[in-house]
Amino acid sequence: MQHASSGAFLDETIFEPTGTGPLDGLKFAVKDLIDLAGLPTGCGNPSWRASHSLAVAHAVCVEQVLAAGARCVGKTVTDELAFSLLGENPFYGTPRNPRAPERVPGGSSSGSASAVACGLVDFAIGTDTGGSVRVPASNCGIFGLRPSHGSVSVAGVYPFAPTFDTVGILAADLEILTRTASVLLARDLPASARVRRLHVITEAFELAEPAVGAQLYEAVAQLADRLGVSLVTTSLRDIDEDPTGQALDAWYDTYCQVQWPEIWSQLGPWYQATGPELSPFALGSLELTRKYDRSRALAAIRRREDLAAHLARFLGPDDLLCLPTVHTPAPLQGSHAVRGFSRAYYSRALALTAISGIGRLPALSLPLAEVDGLPVGLCLLAGSGQDAFLLAAARQAVPAPVA
Amino acid sequence: MQHASSGAFLDETIFEPTGTGPLDGLKFAVKDLIDLAGLPTGCGNPSWRASHSLAVAHAVCVEQVLAAGARCVGKTVTDELAFSLLGENPFYGTPRNPRAPERVPGGSSSGSASAVACGLVDFAIGTDTGGSVRVPASNCGIFGLRPSHGSVSVAGVYPFAPTFDTVGILAADLEILTRTASVLLARDLPASARVRRLHVITEAFELAEPAVGAQLYEAVAQLADRLGVSLVTTSLRDIDEDPTGQALDAWYDTYCQVQWPEIWSQLGPWYQATGPELSPFALGSLELTRKYDRSRALAAIRRREDLAAHLARFLGPDDLLCLPTVHTPAPLQGSHAVRGFSRAYYSRALALTAISGIGRLPALSLPLAEVDGLPVGLCLLAGSGQDAFLLAAARQAVPAPVA
Repeated sequence: MQHASSGAFLDETIFEPTGTGPLDGLKFAVKDLIDLAGLPTGCGNPSWRASHSLAVAHAVCVEQVLAAGARCVGKTVTDELAFSLLGENPFYGTPRNPRAPERVPGGSSSGSASAVACGLVDFAIGTDTGGSVRVPASNCGIFGLRPSHGSVSVAGVYPFAPTFDTVGILAADLEILTRTASVLLARDLPASARVRRLHVITEAFELAEPAVGAQLYEAVAQLADRLGVSLVTTSLRDIDEDPTGQALDAWYDTYCQVQWPEIWSQLGPWYQATGPELSPFALGSLELTRKYDRSRALAAIRRREDLAAHLARFLGPDDLLCLPTVHTPAPLQGSHAVRGFSRAYYSRALALTAISGIGRLPALSLPLAEVDGLPVGLCLLAGSGQDAFLLAAARQAVPAPVA
Repeated sequence: MQHASSGAFLDETIFEPTGTGPLDGLKFAVKDLIDLAGLPTGCGNPSWRASHSLAVAHAVCVEQVLAAGARCVGKTVTDELAFSLLGENPFYGTPRNPRAPERVPGGSSSGSASAVACGLVDFAIGTDTGGSVRVPASNCGIFGLRPSHGSVSVAGVYPFAPTFDTVGILAADLEILTRTASVLLARDLPASARVRRLHVITEAFELAEPAVGAQLYEAVAQLADRLGVSLVTTSLRDIDEDPTGQALDAWYDTYCQVQWPEIWSQLGPWYQATGPELSPFALGSLELTRKYDRSRALAAIRRREDLAAHLARFLGPDDLLCLPTVHTPAPLQGSHAVRGFSRAYYSRALALTAISGIGRLPALSLPLAEVDGLPVGLCLLAGSGQDAFLLAAARQAVPAPVA
């Protein structure tokens, strides 16, 4: 069976559309952190699956796309408890990355990205707290949207770090992604946008591997051409006014310190009370959040709000930021076992993905480049709440696929 | 014991400050929907309390105020599963409303409001989804803030309807409320604000009982005087451009239809799997959410986003809306048993409180009037994210208490 060979699906229960609309005729799949009525929401861990009640209803986001005409074809694999950006689940396997079969799909919306990239669905719903839609989109060569925080309902979706949690969309076709976004954001999206400035974030391009930075810079230049705007080279220091010049290290550190206590608040009670079976990676991650000194949260949250305020002041309603979605193409499978890999990978990947989380900004990863035949995504960010502008600008800037 | 006689407290475990700062020397209490480490988070229902694990950490909002110097003196009673705006819990009693001992305190942050109004704490943390901070603040004659949606962490706080859930503050002193808000919002708040327009929402004043509307209109006129601005009389139709003139009925209906499926997604799995003991009111409310036709959610969410967009266009960064917090003073205890009471009460109360939920707006209830000796609150709303402006404007407009 085509589906089984992708490793993307956990369950292939079909749910028919409940209405007709802009998604008529489209098939979709749903990450296993999101409720489908009558099924367990397993969060990528067998103990979680066994210790939680079945979902009594579809999550609100699922109801929205069913009512707009789409057909649900099943649930997709996620990283264990959403903890990883790689997409290798020790219990449920590694969904196939058809663009790089020896490499990971990326996570934690691993099966959602795989199902889309393998052509098994038209779009998939995932979640993105710290990059879990954007990173697999980049690795698998597809589009991935993280909407503005709070703009799409998270009811019926497993909470991980509520301050950053969002429901996002993966699709191979930007037009389908946009139609789905219009349904989830519950508003009409304009066909075009007038972009004033396209900011290339220097430190973000410097953080990427040289070939990734170079390829994506070319892609940005083409976007700017098609939009008819000049590229502006912008340092993070122009935004955050941080005199220490810590730049992305400070954003990464702030993101982690806000996220860790939230994860422990959400997962800790279950972990302490039930003693679940966890992989060493998930266990280590959870222990990190348990040991965090929570009295430090106040200062971290202040830094976060300060950075968010700087972003809000800097970004006009017609500005875009651009940066590499992630610093590298998809790592080889099994890389997490290589000494030092995880620290090096996460400190760079999360530094890049943290900007939108901190600023509550919408972010869209575009599959616009390759390095040695491996896809890498360019990420566009707009001001908080400017999802419609972001999507319209992207549709203008990205050439339609050749039919 | 003073505390016990108020009926406000469920538990009086003390947690000492973890730092010093702007809340040094202040005492606070926490609604029983919010985690305190080592205690059950009972959500006002004994079956919930028995079937959930103990909290492993304080909620992030609690950590913030402890780190800023405040001392936690316990957990306060909430309405059962946060379902009511009245404050009568069939399992844990009715916290005292010292301003009207035969009447309800209001809910669902009933014990938090009572503890403040009885002078047992300097401030209390509550939650506000559809009025659960603002309504008890109005009934008990104290200040109550619902911040902009997404501006204060909800990690470690029981999710009810995530699209509308917020963590709010109750206090008898506006300056203490403002200092606490500064800690939870994690930013400095300006001492003053320049208000451009103060909009009196016609339909909201018409919905209130005549004496409530009249008293609050006088209070508004005094606020306008102190702010040096003219009152602007604004119809909701000027905001929502609804040609049918359904006005608040449409806002109420939209709010309910967005909230119901979210509540069922959050509570349904527990309800179906454990068969908890529920009061008739909570059972009826939950059954209402179970029976809601979820395929209607798409249209309701669209109406919500459309109304929110209208509010965003209408409200400049220096505009305030004002309306009665609730249409009536606190009802007599036991009113819920009177035939027809609940429907009449909720359809009016929620119509007024829904505006900020729909618009993601911050809202502050001010104890500025009395009707027959019973307190009623005036509610000020500002644009989404304009919490700092709202608080600064209120401090300018409200006379400091006589020491």
